[in-house]
Amino acid sequence: MKNTIKIGIVGLGRIGQIHLANIATRVKNAEVVAAADITESLLDFARRHGVENVSTNPEYVLTHPDVEAVVICTPTPTHVPYTILAAQHGKHIFCEKPLDLSIEQILVAKEAVEMANVQLMLGFNRRFDANFLKVKEMVHEGLVGDPHILKITSRDPNPPQIEYVKSSGGLFLDMAIHDFDMARYVMNSEVTEVYAKAKVLVDPRIGAEGDIDTAITTLTFANGAIGVIDNSRKAVYGYDQRIEVFGSGGMTQTKNNTPDTHEYYNDKGGHLSLPLNFFLERYAEAYVNEINVFVSSILAGENVPVNAHDGLMATAIAMAAKQSYMEDRPVKIEEILSAITA
Amino acid sequence: MKNTIKIGIVGLGRIGQIHLANIATRVKNAEVVAAADITESLLDFARRHGVENVSTNPEYVLTHPDVEAVVICTPTPTHVPYTILAAQHGKHIFCEKPLDLSIEQILVAKEAVEMANVQLMLGFNRRFDANFLKVKEMVHEGLVGDPHILKITSRDPNPPQIEYVKSSGGLFLDMAIHDFDMARYVMNSEVTEVYAKAKVLVDPRIGAEGDIDTAITTLTFANGAIGVIDNSRKAVYGYDQRIEVFGSGGMTQTKNNTPDTHEYYNDKGGHLSLPLNFFLERYAEAYVNEINVFVSSILAGENVPVNAHDGLMATAIAMAAKQSYMEDRPVKIEEILSAITA
Amino acid sequence: MKNTIKIGIVGLGRIGQIHLANIATRVKNAEVVAAADITESLLDFARRHGVENVSTNPEYVLTHPDVEAVVICTPTPTHVPYTILAAQHGKHIFCEKPLDLSIEQILVAKEAVEMANVQLMLGFNRRFDANFLKVKEMVHEGLVGDPHILKITSRDPNPPQIEYVKSSGGLFLDMAIHDFDMARYVMNSEVTEVYAKAKVLVDPRIGAEGDIDTAITTLTFANGAIGVIDNSRKAVYGYDQRIEVFGSGGMTQTKNNTPDTHEYYNDKGGHLSLPLNFFLERYAEAYVNEINVFVSSILAGENVPVNAHDGLMATAIAMAAKQSYMEDRPVKIEEILSAITA
Amino acid sequence: MKNTIKIGIVGLGRIGQIHLANIATRVKNAEVVAAADITESLLDFARRHGVENVSTNPEYVLTHPDVEAVVICTPTPTHVPYTILAAQHGKHIFCEKPLDLSIEQILVAKEAVEMANVQLMLGFNRRFDANFLKVKEMVHEGLVGDPHILKITSRDPNPPQIEYVKSSGGLFLDMAIHDFDMARYVMNSEVTEVYAKAKVLVDPRIGAEGDIDTAITTLTFANGAIGVIDNSRKAVYGYDQRIEVFGSGGMTQTKNNTPDTHEYYNDKGGHLSLPLNFFLERYAEAYVNEINVFVSSILAGENVPVNAHDGLMATAIAMAAKQSYMEDRPVKIEEILSAITA
Repeated sequence: MKNTIKIGIVGLGRIGQIHLANIATRVKNAEVVAAADITESLLDFARRHGVENVSTNPEYVLTHPDVEAVVICTPTPTHVPYTILAAQHGKHIFCEKPLDLSIEQILVAKEAVEMANVQLMLGFNRRFDANFLKVKEMVHEGLVGDPHILKITSRDPNPPQIEYVKSSGGLFLDMAIHDFDMARYVMNSEVTEVYAKAKVLVDPRIGAEGDIDTAITTLTFANGAIGVIDNSRKAVYGYDQRIEVFGSGGMTQTKNNTPDTHEYYNDKGGHLSLPLNFFLERYAEAYVNEINVFVSSILAGENVPVNAHDGLMATAIAMAAKQSYMEDRPVKIEEILSAITA
Repeated sequence: MKNTIKIGIVGLGRIGQIHLANIATRVKNAEVVAAADITESLLDFARRHGVENVSTNPEYVLTHPDVEAVVICTPTPTHVPYTILAAQHGKHIFCEKPLDLSIEQILVAKEAVEMANVQLMLGFNRRFDANFLKVKEMVHEGLVGDPHILKITSRDPNPPQIEYVKSSGGLFLDMAIHDFDMARYVMNSEVTEVYAKAKVLVDPRIGAEGDIDTAITTLTFANGAIGVIDNSRKAVYGYDQRIEVFGSGGMTQTKNNTPDTHEYYNDKGGHLSLPLNFFLERYAEAYVNEINVFVSSILAGENVPVNAHDGLMATAIAMAAKQSYMEDRPVKIEEILSAITA
Repeated sequence: MKNTIKIGIVGLGRIGQIHLANIATRVKNAEVVAAADITESLLDFARRHGVENVSTNPEYVLTHPDVEAVVICTPTPTHVPYTILAAQHGKHIFCEKPLDLSIEQILVAKEAVEMANVQLMLGFNRRFDANFLKVKEMVHEGLVGDPHILKITSRDPNPPQIEYVKSSGGLFLDMAIHDFDMARYVMNSEVTEVYAKAKVLVDPRIGAEGDIDTAITTLTFANGAIGVIDNSRKAVYGYDQRIEVFGSGGMTQTKNNTPDTHEYYNDKGGHLSLPLNFFLERYAEAYVNEINVFVSSILAGENVPVNAHDGLMATAIAMAAKQSYMEDRPVKIEEILSAITA
Repeated sequence: MKNTIKIGIVGLGRIGQIHLANIATRVKNAEVVAAADITESLLDFARRHGVENVSTNPEYVLTHPDVEAVVICTPTPTHVPYTILAAQHGKHIFCEKPLDLSIEQILVAKEAVEMANVQLMLGFNRRFDANFLKVKEMVHEGLVGDPHILKITSRDPNPPQIEYVKSSGGLFLDMAIHDFDMARYVMNSEVTEVYAKAKVLVDPRIGAEGDIDTAITTLTFANGAIGVIDNSRKAVYGYDQRIEVFGSGGMTQTKNNTPDTHEYYNDKGGHLSLPLNFFLERYAEAYVNEINVFVSSILAGENVPVNAHDGLMATAIAMAAKQSYMEDRPVKIEEILSAITA
């Protein structure tokens, strides 16, 4: 087994910087040897962390002979071409979600990766959060018995910029996709049917772009269980991320994480901390954990735990949810998949 | 304003005994002067509480000249005829839910009550529980802003006897009807559309009777909000009754009530009390409160807070849910109502 | 075994009314047949509950031939003489705490009760509260192993009237005496030494009366454990009543009871209910429970669970605490007791 | 203002390694340029983190010309001589607590530091924990009004090795010293008197060494408030670290931190996570924060927030507690200090 792995990062925006800093300081057995961003000024961040090879050309990193694995943090439309290029040069790949908004493109990337015999891991970071991990483990260990009902609450503190909304693919493909992945992961079963009821209640500009900002999505699982996800683009009290699994043997649930555990009582009432503000705070440790798992999987020659198939299925559920919402009817995942492969 | 009201009770099963004992000991300005049950032995309960007029003939109580108001706790099929008889004799009526499983019959009772100019209050006891009341008040006072998402969790500790299942009308009309009433009450808005996904996961004998035991029901409200109710006939950890309302201004939720507030920690983990066992314990105070409200409304000459229209709408939602489940499609409440009135 | 017990109540102030109403409506196998208060107008309360024999003369009730047991709710200085009179007439006695502020007087009452062979139960109501009962049971069942540390938090929402302070015996004998009783009860061991550090931090008028309003009292138990009680006469957030027992096998603790279980989150923070306001709300069920236990003990011919010895020991601890505070030194309970019996 | 600070570490045991790794990866504007431990094999840890100057001779680091600040993680008896040597060579000093078990020695170090005009910060890490910081801020901002009662719970999961007990100075000087520092810090007021009741309840071998393992310590503050600390060397459920401050305006408290937030309910009961295991997990972030504050204070030319005076006062309280326990009487801090300076 190799001792360390040399990593190249493409895309040095907010999430790219997090991954770079984590690998540089908190991930075992990995070092960042190359980094690229088309914006020259962002390269300073990499230089300050001692990255020797920096470039405004992503291809330089994706094909660099010293690089053994790449972390792709560029905008979504580049994910598939960069994945293919990296795979062709024999690099293992960690790619931020979503792999692509189109299932066809995901399948192209999946094939390229399989042909090149490299690993492709998707950044579904919540799988590596202590709360979600605990619930997943309890369910998989049988502590809730046969799962009957899954409930996920997933609400953002604020909607994204309208410009972002336009290109994001919409609430289901951009935001709820994390929840769809979590649903499959925790329940250890594929989703077979989706019904989504959605509204524009937060900001009419979101509706003007053809998107929605509030949704309740019912899921049916292959194992017979059912589930529901509620999403909102704006929770004034902060980032609300909770899960509950109910089954024949019991129920497990998690609460939000808070900056501290204080309770304060005065003549006005009792007071608690609000949840951690947003995903960068809430999932700070999850970001460290996911890269650690990526690195250790590669070094051990094992398959990564979140792959192109996972990306494909989460996207298919999101597309089914979107169609269900638009046509106000339940949509089977099979209907989505067969339309693609037909 | 009169000082006290004389009450007659018909049906001295479990719930009839609770109402009788509550009126005898904990309800202000009311006394039980007559009671009936077709089972002679149950009359002893009334005698022990000093009820002077007892009979195995419910009509005796419903028409007794001393009785000013009746509490109807007999089986569901008798609710409408007893309501009509009592109304015709000028008695105010408190009737256990549901008024009837058929909307036509509910309309007949509603008309009889209106013609007789008496009050008819339905026993949607949860409206009078401290937790649900608090959430309702907060929502109505605007503390969550515009409501966007309602979530109700409603799980029984054990399924009813199969014999009961046969005549109950099924999960939606028998059990979830409480949640449908709560949804209208808390949101202060009518439900316009329902989608229900339901399963037989607890006991195949329930399925054999054409009923289901696990459900997720999506609600659309006239005010634009959406909601979801999850039901199960069997939560091994006890009676699970929670609510959450999320809106533009915040979120409020309640937890289950427990017999005590202890937390215990040993080398195995942290431990908490389970929820109060079932509705008799969980809603013990709500039962007292609802009769108090009934009595005080009558004495004040005011309308009771839960009437035949409320019973009708809850039933219509339940019927829509049942149809939605059977046909796997969203069903509008209007579709149910217009089929009746057509 | 007798079926019911006939009770006479002396003192129809706040607590006397609670006991009368509870016995009349919620206590099994007991009825109030006589009641007295020196204030004529208070007798109406008894009349409204159907009590046939009422009088402004307490002796009338304490000696009434129909009365089998008395409930003494008059001011503290009358407790011992009324107890003696009732005992001499063969009545069982339930007496509000404290039996007396003087140990000598307690001993006199104790002897009278023993000579008359009647039961005397003291109203340490917290012993019958669900939270304290649960902790007591867990400790006695060994769930915390050998108890090492006891912690009691006991804070009132507001200080009593200054007039009351003057005659109350002070914080230790009036307020903390409940906590001293609880300490002995939960730990199942006598207190052997006390150190009290106390202050006037709430209201200087309390200090002007020679009393204190804030205290931390360390207890040493015969079984080797140690404990601490913190008291305040004014918690602006309400009545704060918590307990924690820590031992070789674990730790158990209780929280305050609240009117409901809601949690509310908005952009300002998270919010909880305050504790139930004061002892009448917090211990409403405990008041019902304690009289039920008194009645069932008498009917079963068994000893009551809180007797004159318990009153004596709680008073001795309170006196030791007061002396400890005044002399700023630890005081042994033996020192208090031997000074009496010498 | 300088940009970065060059740090030397002496002592590469458990805590030294934590500081080294934190500075290397998570502390801004600092780098470790030298490290020493008398055990040669421990130097590898420093080498793996790229420390260039390593030695088995602590003096090499304490006097190294490149070193601007030292972090002292060696055994307690070396703290003062190393502090003096570093001060004489103009290095700023971060020293693990306690500075020394003797107040005289602390004064010697204090003087050396003041003469050399360097900063000396003590590692009272809990001051930099999010929970304790929040309570401190709330108290200092006046949210509890005038503080009346402070309560600290501080229990270790397991007693130290008996060998360690022998040289540790005992429970008060080794373990409770953190709580004494926290008491002064949160209350923003000096402790003036101490009464400690202590026992050997966990392990008789601790008693055989003249130490105790269970204690309740009452504190009196100069501002009139009172406080209590309860300590145990063994909580079977893990590391128990809680605080509560009660005052004229309200009460604030913190709970333990847990590895996740799950609640699990089955037919046996409700279940929670246990607290994080011990100080390395519980205070992991506090260790990062304290060095960050040390570094930023030095770079800004400001005084560090925990200095020799703080160490001296915490030690004086611990000595008073020990004497109070041994003589079973309250002991004034003045009594301890005047004995020293006399």
